[in-house]
Amino acid sequence: MKVATFIEPGHMTVTDAPVPTIQKDTDAIIKIVRACVCGSDLWWFRGISPRESGSFGGHEAIGIVQEVGSAVTSVQPGDFVIAPFTHGCGYCAACKAGFDGNCMNMESGGNAGYQGEYLRFTNAQWALVKVPGQPSDYTDEQLNSLLALSDVMATGYHAAKSAEVKEGDTVVVVGDGAVGLCGVIGARLLGASRIIAMSRHADRQALAREFGATDIVEERGDEAIARVMELTDGAGADAVLECVGTEQSIDTAVAICRPGAVMGRVGVPHKPEMDTNSLFWKNIGLRGGIASVTTYDRDRLLDAVLNDEIHPGKVFNQRFSLDDIQSAYEAMDTRAAIKSLVIVTE
Amino acid sequence: MKVATFIEPGHMTVTDAPVPTIQKDTDAIIKIVRACVCGSDLWWFRGISPRESGSFGGHEAIGIVQEVGSAVTSVQPGDFVIAPFTHGCGYCAACKAGFDGNCMNMESGGNAGYQGEYLRFTNAQWALVKVPGQPSDYTDEQLNSLLALSDVMATGYHAAKSAEVKEGDTVVVVGDGAVGLCGVIGARLLGASRIIAMSRHADRQALAREFGATDIVEERGDEAIARVMELTDGAGADAVLECVGTEQSIDTAVAICRPGAVMGRVGVPHKPEMDTNSLFWKNIGLRGGIASVTTYDRDRLLDAVLNDEIHPGKVFNQRFSLDDIQSAYEAMDTRAAIKSLVIVTE
Repeated sequence: MKVATFIEPGHMTVTDAPVPTIQKDTDAIIKIVRACVCGSDLWWFRGISPRESGSFGGHEAIGIVQEVGSAVTSVQPGDFVIAPFTHGCGYCAACKAGFDGNCMNMESGGNAGYQGEYLRFTNAQWALVKVPGQPSDYTDEQLNSLLALSDVMATGYHAAKSAEVKEGDTVVVVGDGAVGLCGVIGARLLGASRIIAMSRHADRQALAREFGATDIVEERGDEAIARVMELTDGAGADAVLECVGTEQSIDTAVAICRPGAVMGRVGVPHKPEMDTNSLFWKNIGLRGGIASVTTYDRDRLLDAVLNDEIHPGKVFNQRFSLDDIQSAYEAMDTRAAIKSLVIVTE
Repeated sequence: MKVATFIEPGHMTVTDAPVPTIQKDTDAIIKIVRACVCGSDLWWFRGISPRESGSFGGHEAIGIVQEVGSAVTSVQPGDFVIAPFTHGCGYCAACKAGFDGNCMNMESGGNAGYQGEYLRFTNAQWALVKVPGQPSDYTDEQLNSLLALSDVMATGYHAAKSAEVKEGDTVVVVGDGAVGLCGVIGARLLGASRIIAMSRHADRQALAREFGATDIVEERGDEAIARVMELTDGAGADAVLECVGTEQSIDTAVAICRPGAVMGRVGVPHKPEMDTNSLFWKNIGLRGGIASVTTYDRDRLLDAVLNDEIHPGKVFNQRFSLDDIQSAYEAMDTRAAIKSLVIVTE
């Protein structure tokens, strides 16, 4: 089978690999229909974090169940599924508390190569999200929105949930990448009445507004802080979604919190050391981490896509064939694409 | 009037000072009945943080309103009140959101010398908490519990609120000082079904149990972590109240959080720098700071004391006259007292 493979920083290619097979009774083999490239993949694509040469790429996909292990009864061959990047067992304390991204029974091995023709998916019984019907029942845009439920939309929603957005809140979203834009959708779903999106790119600003942003702040750093304080009559935001992870974005997020506000962060922190006094003396909360994809998809997001309430698939503004995987990464790397779609099976 | 005065580290005395007068129309003058010494006062008593020689001590008291500014209509001379250490205006964004400890209209000046005969209290209109009747209507223990509502009980409750304790939770309270013990009460008020108190002192363990603790962990550091993990079947706690503020206590608190748990901290952080990766990768929340004394007293705590539902005054296990203020501090410093009561007016 064909699968996207990392050669060295800046270089992805498609290699031929054996089709994966069931290794554990909780596995499923998924025939991938669509996959995509994640902003977090740029870390190793750019050589900032290490990655083994020859490893397979991707962690987001939709596809068709090809085969299941003997313990998997929730889906069967032929089912259309979302393949989340998370693999919750559904019964540990973390999964039960709604944090399946931190499942305490994570299965090692498997889950390599969502950007490929077939995938061995672990903990398939609970973690896979079944979609009614078949891919052919959906429009191109709907397929993209379903694909977004494998990570980016759930991650944006996690930022909003972590920031404890509630009805009537004034929310600031820091970051106009695909996750930040999905954070805008998440904040709207949770009832925010005002959503201030930080963005300086016209296409992303337009999408943010389409997703529910009421205000755009183009400034950065101290000027961005001043602008948000002006927009909130000096109070700061009730909730802040930090969807970048750089030191500057985190500092900005803290500074624009109203006393007692919670910052929900989903951007992998580039600089984990933080002076938490800035939080303590203003009672600012810091929450967030890995999204609970299966929990959120089942609770709310899948229905919201199926009911045409949300359209997160619009973040895919460039599409590529699997054979052209290098261009899909490059488009993300240069920020030409908000998010690169990878068509695996037409 | 007599007032407790800081001379130098390790040395408090009572000096004679002019009775304070109304300076702003939002002030009140309070004749103090009972005051106390706070664990946070030990920072400067021990010379760890700086303090100006000659400054007046204390920030917790109950008393009688003596005089009010022209804008103060909520209380009148003769009223029995709790004088919180916080001074919320009641109408700024922070106060409205329930974070009056971070009031954005804090009045500078005033509020010095709760351990004294008279106090000028700022933002009196909203911040003072009126108590029905007169001190003579209450038992000695009830007076102490009302006094606890000026800080320590509200602060313990803030730890539990910040940790987002909910019905049925397994909660760990790190710290067996007066705040930690009040945190046990707070966790119980919020419905925790299991409360694990970390303590190695028999008298504090007994009080923790009386306040609602179901388990005691005597170990510290890695052994404490192992013990909590054992008690929670390897899951960790649903909520952790961090009531100390040292590096070790914060590290312990993080390590015993179940994925997705929130740590509510009220101990002033001794080492504010923190590696927040340990939070991010387990979705652990960090909240807390200065308590919302007036909000909590009005919402729930005053009723709970008046209805005999909670008895936070039991943390005062040693009492002193104002003249003996040095001994009151020393008893806290040596941990002979859980909390020192200071009788100002018999």
